[in-house]
Amino acid sequence: MMQDHLVVSDDSNHPANMVCSLSRQFYEKEWCVGTGGSIAIRDEETGFCYLAPSGVQKELLKPQDLFVLDGNSKEQDVYLRKPAGLKLSDCTPIFQMLFQNFNAGAIIHTHSPNAVLTSLLYDDVFEISHIEQIKALPSERVNAETGKPVNLLFEDTLKIPIIDNQNFEYELTDGLQEMCQKWPHGCAVLVRRHGIFVWGPSITKAKIYNESIDYLLGLAIKMHQLGIPTVKKN
Amino acid sequence: MMQDHLVVSDDSNHPANMVCSLSRQFYEKEWCVGTGGSIAIRDEETGFCYLAPSGVQKELLKPQDLFVLDGNSKEQDVYLRKPAGLKLSDCTPIFQMLFQNFNAGAIIHTHSPNAVLTSLLYDDVFEISHIEQIKALPSERVNAETGKPVNLLFEDTLKIPIIDNQNFEYELTDGLQEMCQKWPHGCAVLVRRHGIFVWGPSITKAKIYNESIDYLLGLAIKMHQLGIPTVKKN
Amino acid sequence: MMQDHLVVSDDSNHPANMVCSLSRQFYEKEWCVGTGGSIAIRDEETGFCYLAPSGVQKELLKPQDLFVLDGNSKEQDVYLRKPAGLKLSDCTPIFQMLFQNFNAGAIIHTHSPNAVLTSLLYDDVFEISHIEQIKALPSERVNAETGKPVNLLFEDTLKIPIIDNQNFEYELTDGLQEMCQKWPHGCAVLVRRHGIFVWGPSITKAKIYNESIDYLLGLAIKMHQLGIPTVKKN
Amino acid sequence: MMQDHLVVSDDSNHPANMVCSLSRQFYEKEWCVGTGGSIAIRDEETGFCYLAPSGVQKELLKPQDLFVLDGNSKEQDVYLRKPAGLKLSDCTPIFQMLFQNFNAGAIIHTHSPNAVLTSLLYDDVFEISHIEQIKALPSERVNAETGKPVNLLFEDTLKIPIIDNQNFEYELTDGLQEMCQKWPHGCAVLVRRHGIFVWGPSITKAKIYNESIDYLLGLAIKMHQLGIPTVKKN
Repeated sequence: MMQDHLVVSDDSNHPANMVCSLSRQFYEKEWCVGTGGSIAIRDEETGFCYLAPSGVQKELLKPQDLFVLDGNSKEQDVYLRKPAGLKLSDCTPIFQMLFQNFNAGAIIHTHSPNAVLTSLLYDDVFEISHIEQIKALPSERVNAETGKPVNLLFEDTLKIPIIDNQNFEYELTDGLQEMCQKWPHGCAVLVRRHGIFVWGPSITKAKIYNESIDYLLGLAIKMHQLGIPTVKKN
Repeated sequence: MMQDHLVVSDDSNHPANMVCSLSRQFYEKEWCVGTGGSIAIRDEETGFCYLAPSGVQKELLKPQDLFVLDGNSKEQDVYLRKPAGLKLSDCTPIFQMLFQNFNAGAIIHTHSPNAVLTSLLYDDVFEISHIEQIKALPSERVNAETGKPVNLLFEDTLKIPIIDNQNFEYELTDGLQEMCQKWPHGCAVLVRRHGIFVWGPSITKAKIYNESIDYLLGLAIKMHQLGIPTVKKN
Repeated sequence: MMQDHLVVSDDSNHPANMVCSLSRQFYEKEWCVGTGGSIAIRDEETGFCYLAPSGVQKELLKPQDLFVLDGNSKEQDVYLRKPAGLKLSDCTPIFQMLFQNFNAGAIIHTHSPNAVLTSLLYDDVFEISHIEQIKALPSERVNAETGKPVNLLFEDTLKIPIIDNQNFEYELTDGLQEMCQKWPHGCAVLVRRHGIFVWGPSITKAKIYNESIDYLLGLAIKMHQLGIPTVKKN
Repeated sequence: MMQDHLVVSDDSNHPANMVCSLSRQFYEKEWCVGTGGSIAIRDEETGFCYLAPSGVQKELLKPQDLFVLDGNSKEQDVYLRKPAGLKLSDCTPIFQMLFQNFNAGAIIHTHSPNAVLTSLLYDDVFEISHIEQIKALPSERVNAETGKPVNLLFEDTLKIPIIDNQNFEYELTDGLQEMCQKWPHGCAVLVRRHGIFVWGPSITKAKIYNESIDYLLGLAIKMHQLGIPTVKKN
């Protein structure tokens, strides 16, 4: 069941190519070293989900290494493609939950050092306000016409919930789902002493959210070191 | 109105190519992540202004994504080229003001973390003196013969005004203009909790100013952490 | 005795090519600047050992610069290939000891700044617990069936012994051997004020261990600066 | 007087190519931003000296931009090649002094932030001991047979003198010469609030010295922040 045609494409924007090129880029940022981290993309047109395997050096990922799951099926585990000799990511139940219940088009999971450090500086929620870059992230408000979330304003406060880590990644699924229900327009959850999950309606949005959040987490750590609160009192 | 001939060129120094290659370079420096930041160049020969669009991943920018504005026209908004499906940068009024009133040949806007952090450590003006790199930046003095500003000396003090951020970038136009009038030979304004605008008579000069300033801001933050004042008393 | 066929191959996974490409990558990370650091790989199939020479810029290493040692021989110094004009690494006795006595398939030695700084913050053992990335590293436990070490769990504590530096690298051999006997399933030893040795059953494993450890050392230094202990009390 | 044949070569080790490739590399390290820094190489065979011009973006340097000076001439300023429209580096008198009086084969001048910060943390001399990387640098001792300096041992102390900056780079010549006379086997002088000059018998040695020193300066700053003295009492 190799089904290579599902993952081999000349188009650099094909989900299989995007998983690989972004994994390489994230490795360079030290977000995915030592086989850590994972990316999953649901193709909007076909509903097929492309998943990185477990325990593989992310900077060396090839399209042929990817699992493809039928995202249209009601059943959880209908695989259209299973690469020989590779294991599914432990994050797969989390990815499926986000695809099915929260309309995610793509999910990025990293071990970003900024995420790990921030999770040690805040209790239940990371908060930052009055920084221009938060305008790249969705708010809890929706556009009256489209029903889609609008982005944060400069004076808003970005909030990202933090959940405690578990021994196995699949054990994080319930905790993440609970946070998604509590923050229905959120796009990220920090996992204490572990890293972060970021998602969006498309891989482009998820990537923009992820790098904007990492920029803000890095800034927050430096503000902490300089004694500057990350939420500004008006 | 695609007018591709205005932006397609084999010359790597063509303004449209420079906007794209520098955007990629600035993304790598984490100055323009999450679609942030923007570059605008006025072609000295033709007077045409090349503007990056809004909300686009800056590292993926292509010449075909650029707006071209007729910088020779007295009217503000004569577009020679509008790429389909893209929006003008919110910074456009700022770019136009700097092109028209202050003879800028190019403007660089970034969300540099060093700029954001510095804007939190200083009140109205960032100041640094007695660092060799300030010699890459223009002073308030002009050459008696040419009337052009001469660069700072080692013992001079570089001053960059800081203005407060607004909810929308176009709302920064007046504040920036005021600072340009107060510092007629300046080349930069910091925007608190947002980033920086840097300009110069050409894109080469603007790039040299921008990277020299970022080097100095980075140094200033570390000097602050080490308890060393950035302005040396003689 | 050039024996170029031992080191020239089109296969990017050939040990000679891996030593060179990883050396280049490690130079970029500032782990191997100024000719520092070294990589050695034992080819599982042939038993031949590929060793980087001494005093050479690691980012410029070519396959033709490598020594090849017969790892099948009972005698210590049976060289199948000695490149003209180059010297063996001072680490060679350490590499041989790890190949012969501890079944190493590959060894990475770097002057990582994170390793040097950590060796100044801890006495005899570096310890960190409750960080997801430690799951990429082997524990002291073995799989009952295979007898191979299993990886650490999130709640485990990673321990890396620290030995004092000596004037010459070969003088570190006994100290390293002692630590390997004490921690038979360990994969790394820190050398105070010097750097780190990391090994594994293959170069892929050694690389994954090395970059995971460096990630953890970097995190530990920042946790130290933020006043957060690296071992969490339950 | 273009004399392009002096600078155009297919050999990546040709001095003109080395000046350009290293300038690009140093720019990436933030050692030569905003046109700062300079490299000069004396070809051992011909005695010709290759000098980078002033005020040029170092990452864009082309062989055709280089000045070539006849290093065999007793007179100071015999130029074999002067590129049209470019100015000699202000460092030229320093380079000539080091070539003529101290047998330098190559000189590297950078505005390394680590050099600037270190020059603010130490008075007259930067000192560090008991760090493995200092073994990449020459000591004050010479080999009894060859008369050439031998490298530092682990337990030695690396000392780099610091001189005060002047308004113009050529004014540093006397201060640098004085330090070279005082430390005849030294390979570097720090210039306070400015950067560093590093030299060696060849460009390879100078590059190795420069990057080893920068590694040590970076380490020293972090040791300072962690409260660890850079010279270890035995």
